[in-house]
Amino acid sequence: MERYRGAHVLVTGALGFIGSQIARRLVQLGAEVTGIDSSQPGSGANPFNLEGIRDQMRFVPADQRDAEALRELVADQHVIFNLAGQVSHLDSMRDPLTDLELNCRAHLTLLEACRAVNPRARIVFASTRQVYGRPDYVPVDERHPLRPTDVNGIHKLAAEQYHLLYYRVYGIRTTALRLTNTYGPGMLVRTDRQTFLGWFIRQALDGETIRIFGDGTQLRDFTFVDDAVDAFLLAGVTDAVVGDVFNVGGIGPASLYNVARLLVELAGRGGIELVPFPPEKKAIDVGSVYNDDTRLRRATGWTPKVDLREGLTRTLEFYRAHRDHYWPAAAGTA
Amino acid sequence: MERYRGAHVLVTGALGFIGSQIARRLVQLGAEVTGIDSSQPGSGANPFNLEGIRDQMRFVPADQRDAEALRELVADQHVIFNLAGQVSHLDSMRDPLTDLELNCRAHLTLLEACRAVNPRARIVFASTRQVYGRPDYVPVDERHPLRPTDVNGIHKLAAEQYHLLYYRVYGIRTTALRLTNTYGPGMLVRTDRQTFLGWFIRQALDGETIRIFGDGTQLRDFTFVDDAVDAFLLAGVTDAVVGDVFNVGGIGPASLYNVARLLVELAGRGGIELVPFPPEKKAIDVGSVYNDDTRLRRATGWTPKVDLREGLTRTLEFYRAHRDHYWPAAAGTA
Repeated sequence: MERYRGAHVLVTGALGFIGSQIARRLVQLGAEVTGIDSSQPGSGANPFNLEGIRDQMRFVPADQRDAEALRELVADQHVIFNLAGQVSHLDSMRDPLTDLELNCRAHLTLLEACRAVNPRARIVFASTRQVYGRPDYVPVDERHPLRPTDVNGIHKLAAEQYHLLYYRVYGIRTTALRLTNTYGPGMLVRTDRQTFLGWFIRQALDGETIRIFGDGTQLRDFTFVDDAVDAFLLAGVTDAVVGDVFNVGGIGPASLYNVARLLVELAGRGGIELVPFPPEKKAIDVGSVYNDDTRLRRATGWTPKVDLREGLTRTLEFYRAHRDHYWPAAAGTA
Repeated sequence: MERYRGAHVLVTGALGFIGSQIARRLVQLGAEVTGIDSSQPGSGANPFNLEGIRDQMRFVPADQRDAEALRELVADQHVIFNLAGQVSHLDSMRDPLTDLELNCRAHLTLLEACRAVNPRARIVFASTRQVYGRPDYVPVDERHPLRPTDVNGIHKLAAEQYHLLYYRVYGIRTTALRLTNTYGPGMLVRTDRQTFLGWFIRQALDGETIRIFGDGTQLRDFTFVDDAVDAFLLAGVTDAVVGDVFNVGGIGPASLYNVARLLVELAGRGGIELVPFPPEKKAIDVGSVYNDDTRLRRATGWTPKVDLREGLTRTLEFYRAHRDHYWPAAAGTA
């Protein structure tokens, strides 16, 4: 990690959950950090995510589809953490053309900019285990067939393939990390349109009843954001992962019901209810799924350090302290 | 094929090679044919491809990305043959954002239009064996891993996945056909930027030297366009292929050298030269590749009928008669 001291690093999606935490760590490590974000409506972009580090980095409110701006921004970067994207599966089905813009055009534009002015940049792209679709087996390893179950998964897969292609054809040193459920301070908890865990957290803190679709036995694995940041930063300085794709797993698997129960216990409030799947969610549900991340651990030495109890505790503490920045007060809790 | 009589059928990319031949056959079968094409610069769109049937069908010069126009055009169609697309691998690398527009946005727009106003339409999409990339084994079947080697392949795969997704989620009855090298009257022979065989044909007819990259032993299979039209039309009326993807193969495999030799023999002119790969082509070359189309033959009864000698003979005859519509006269041949 010493290699980030003084390094020029660009973070896209820097107002988002994981992007902002990467920027925060990089600032601590003494990197020259530039963050960009276009603050898409409905996205996880939140100015508060960069609270306390804004004067130790450069932030540019750029749209990653702006080719001219991108060429200038990537020109002198040593490492680029490419976290920008639309992450809601449901939104990708309701508005597939916007998903195409944000999850395909934006990344092609970034890669074209690097090809034009900075082919020596090191790029780490945030992909998702969603590219596997409903798994044939668990844990899912990187050889699993790629069968995305929604527009978002199709576009994330295309974007991942762009990154690997630009390595094979142009030698741009890219790596794609297929993330699983990542959680922690800064995640979007305002709506139920992105991660289920963010919504569970919000509901527990508001003393509401967490509704789980199905019987609650669906298994998931979880990466606390500090561990995810470790994975990105290690990938950015490990030659062995260049031009390849790796799963990022974490702690687990745990059932949705048990995660919700732990959350209610730690929050000291909230309840749990099992309800049938609504058709629009059932159509794109993937059942139990969790990642085999053996290859990443071997290649980089990465290992997740924060278990679910500790991670959820730290997350709940964060939102208790800063909830006003993340969601409007519920009636009776203001 | 009787089922096409009186059927309302939309063909996208109707000025292109395969699209126009599908339109021609449908007119013969008594269908009510609408063709659309946006005549993209550099594409295979050629008004002469609809010569002789223009008054027996409706042609609309629409851009498939025009959502409003599309909703009107798809509204009363029973079957849609979705042939529009950018097919040059090299162009997709030089201008990936245009490839994204033509190979992703256009198809999402069509599918969204069907979802909105005509979810009962039957759609057959022209995909490509390029989605497999450099094959692990030949012949390539549909279980082969998907590893496109250029931007065009990435986008064709995404478009194929859109079609299958809209079946799974919305019940729109789609089929994707992964075509191999399709050739015949109406194919683009003007430049070397699309199919190698089109360019070989043009060179043989102009008495030029056909340059083959590598040692000429690379194997390919070939589908004469009449056989490809059969495959599309059968797929459009076969319930067993709904929601699935099928290879289309043909006659072969044959080596590039032997194909060129046959062509020079049939043309009665031209020569052959083996030359080393230029780097930009080597980077996206896939070696020997040909399709296993057992599943399509079983599901639809399709079988290719035209062998390479007959197909090339008919193709050469067509271009001898109509070359003025397909490429500028070479010096000394006018």
